[in-house]
Amino acid sequence: MELALGLAREAAQTGEVPVGAVVLGPDGAVLARAGNRTETDHDAAAHAEMIALRAAAARIGNARLVACDLVVTLEPCPMCAAAAGLFRIRRVVFGAYDPKGGGVEHGPRIYDAPGAQHRPEVIGGLREAECADLLKRFFAARR
Amino acid sequence: MELALGLAREAAQTGEVPVGAVVLGPDGAVLARAGNRTETDHDAAAHAEMIALRAAAARIGNARLVACDLVVTLEPCPMCAAAAGLFRIRRVVFGAYDPKGGGVEHGPRIYDAPGAQHRPEVIGGLREAECADLLKRFFAARR
Repeated sequence: MELALGLAREAAQTGEVPVGAVVLGPDGAVLARAGNRTETDHDAAAHAEMIALRAAAARIGNARLVACDLVVTLEPCPMCAAAAGLFRIRRVVFGAYDPKGGGVEHGPRIYDAPGAQHRPEVIGGLREAECADLLKRFFAARR
Repeated sequence: MELALGLAREAAQTGEVPVGAVVLGPDGAVLARAGNRTETDHDAAAHAEMIALRAAAARIGNARLVACDLVVTLEPCPMCAAAAGLFRIRRVVFGAYDPKGGGVEHGPRIYDAPGAQHRPEVIGGLREAECADLLKRFFAARR
């Protein structure tokens, strides 16, 4: 999460919403890392999680990230939560909860929805205050 | 939908699940088109819709596909349905319904979920039989 927090801070410096994500391999090694790039790339799907998941799969040459974990500073949105399921992520660890935009513990609750085909283990609230503070300060500064 | 069906057929020829997607601009012109590429790209997020949405946004240099429509041969999965919302798609038109993997009329019903921030108009079942038949024949041939 320390690494993900650093990526979130870097994202903020380029005007992106400060969210950072890391994909860890079965041995705990970092397979991929990313910060948000939606503004930079004009790509609403360029959330940190999505970039890191795709990069990790590209790196190992396999669309199934078996026994890999996703660590992200903010509760994944429905798109990213569903993507983590498609990539067969073992565990989703996130920092801040997102009552408005989250899709794991809020909104459509992707892994609890009928028909969910893969349900990662979920650990929410890791270093929650630091992760949330980064977002709060970013949005406060933009107002 | 004719164009999307052609893209789905092309996808099948490369061993991909036959789904095709097109993004239409406000004037009805084709902004982007794609078939599934999950196998080819080792990318579980390389669904036809996701590729077409990202390509359309890249083409117009704007992550908001205002007044643009997504036409796809199969009901979008939760990831793609949520992505279409993030890209602010005006209308989602799909062919076959997907009771097992769909995320619009099935599963988490992304646009009806609490907190959904953008709700495209949805038209399902357009040329449903042709779209579904393509999938049925593909999976039958693989068995």
